[in-house]
Amino acid sequence: MDYTLIFGHKNPDTDAICSALAYADLKKRLGFQTKAVRLGEVSKETQFALDTFSIQPPELAAEKLAKNQDVILVDHNEHSQSIDSLEEGNILEVIDHHRISNFSSEQPVYFRTEPVGCTATILYKIYKEHGLEPDAAIAGLMLSAIISDTLLFKSPTSTEADHITASELSKLATVDMEAYGMELLKAGAGTENLDPTDIITIDAKLFKMGSANVEIAQVNVVDTSNVQSRSEEIKNAISERIENNDLAMFVLLITDILTSESLVMVLGEEQQKFEQAFSTTLKEDMAFLSGIVSRKKQVVPPLTQAFAD
Amino acid sequence: MDYTLIFGHKNPDTDAICSALAYADLKKRLGFQTKAVRLGEVSKETQFALDTFSIQPPELAAEKLAKNQDVILVDHNEHSQSIDSLEEGNILEVIDHHRISNFSSEQPVYFRTEPVGCTATILYKIYKEHGLEPDAAIAGLMLSAIISDTLLFKSPTSTEADHITASELSKLATVDMEAYGMELLKAGAGTENLDPTDIITIDAKLFKMGSANVEIAQVNVVDTSNVQSRSEEIKNAISERIENNDLAMFVLLITDILTSESLVMVLGEEQQKFEQAFSTTLKEDMAFLSGIVSRKKQVVPPLTQAFAD
Repeated sequence: MDYTLIFGHKNPDTDAICSALAYADLKKRLGFQTKAVRLGEVSKETQFALDTFSIQPPELAAEKLAKNQDVILVDHNEHSQSIDSLEEGNILEVIDHHRISNFSSEQPVYFRTEPVGCTATILYKIYKEHGLEPDAAIAGLMLSAIISDTLLFKSPTSTEADHITASELSKLATVDMEAYGMELLKAGAGTENLDPTDIITIDAKLFKMGSANVEIAQVNVVDTSNVQSRSEEIKNAISERIENNDLAMFVLLITDILTSESLVMVLGEEQQKFEQAFSTTLKEDMAFLSGIVSRKKQVVPPLTQAFAD
Repeated sequence: MDYTLIFGHKNPDTDAICSALAYADLKKRLGFQTKAVRLGEVSKETQFALDTFSIQPPELAAEKLAKNQDVILVDHNEHSQSIDSLEEGNILEVIDHHRISNFSSEQPVYFRTEPVGCTATILYKIYKEHGLEPDAAIAGLMLSAIISDTLLFKSPTSTEADHITASELSKLATVDMEAYGMELLKAGAGTENLDPTDIITIDAKLFKMGSANVEIAQVNVVDTSNVQSRSEEIKNAISERIENNDLAMFVLLITDILTSESLVMVLGEEQQKFEQAFSTTLKEDMAFLSGIVSRKKQVVPPLTQAFAD
């Protein structure tokens, strides 16, 4: 049987996993043969959501896409964030809420990005456009994706549409949005049990900025002291990654979900572009950025601008 | 007052004009300040539609976009087909049904392409998603766009969604779809009153294929004999255009809307790529291609492939 594979980005976060599962559910209900897969390990936060709603994680995708495999991308559109052999496949659809980066298709495709906080918010709209609604478990996963991406609506990426959608989903999932939301975020926060390599790769995304490769990783915490006390070993891991992957810059955002500020660690030969973009001075490669919690909305645009200058 | 400008591609066809007018109407009803403009002359076919439904054509756009002007693109997404100074503006949305070509945005945008025959088909869906429907005149324009783009459903780009949408729109517009459709297509067909430069530029689109510039123009006729008898002067006009615009190839499709075949004229140093793409031999730079009526679906993909080889 020919399945269309549906997957989110590498280093999958809760939206990348849950939106793949939700869209596979919707497509199945519409009569299509689809299968959600994932491009990496399931995070603690995502596992908490899957456990809460008793859903199995998607299978890990094969390393290479089969020639002409039909695929649907959710929660990403940049080739650098997708499966390595994406060019072998046949992209039927893209559902995403990120910037668009040099996307091309030979044929017209169903491509839909909207400037909202989460892919699941767009998917809920698509369910409704088909006169359907997700069942309780899928609604719970979609709610988890929105809470995760918007940091429980504290992120500047959060829109009214995300908030309204999350409210409706929490009713379908029969959970208290605020209480469940804080539990979910706390389940994913913390670096205590992570080694430095995990901290810098668990949620890392690679961006092309001009001709430069810039990797930006993010971890959520409820207290930055653990990371600060381990800053030397983390910086060593970053330096090694820059060397091995030919990066012009690596940015690690350690985001405190309670205070909505981020400690950043920035390394690489283009370090001064970060200082320029954020009008800040790095001390021992670090700075505190108050109110900065969104990689997509608050970090990528000014850095892209700095690399274009 | 700050208006968001909405426009279709250069050398506007009926979809480019009518979808700009329709989306401006919808946006206005949703509370946004928008204004439809056009990037070129109104064709005879489009004028017939505007006259039938008593709607004024959109204003011609200024030659240059003001810095940071908010814009919405309909019926195109390729920079080469848009206003020259597009990079000065701020693209808020794209609604289109063509291939996507190296599209990038610094911020997330509302970007929606669907593999259907006409932009107006997507717009009708968006009206319905907002619980609205177009009034009779706007419905008539949207119907005209669908008839024009699908050649009254004979083009292989035509989908079931286009057909169903056109039926619903014809009821709203209170016209007989088939009879009005044939009148509309005939109003736009014919080359008798056109000089060679008009014939090759009225509906011409520029494509980047690899590093090559390829321009593909199309005219509809009900009889190819007028063009055949004037082939020498038309070929001269094409040669001049290739020279002036540094084109690797120029393709003119003269499409017979009654028989669904196209006479093609192909010039340029890369002529053999056309022969390769269509397994045909040009005689005096011309060939008859049976069943070929769609630039987008039947000409652009094989040519793009030939230029990639």
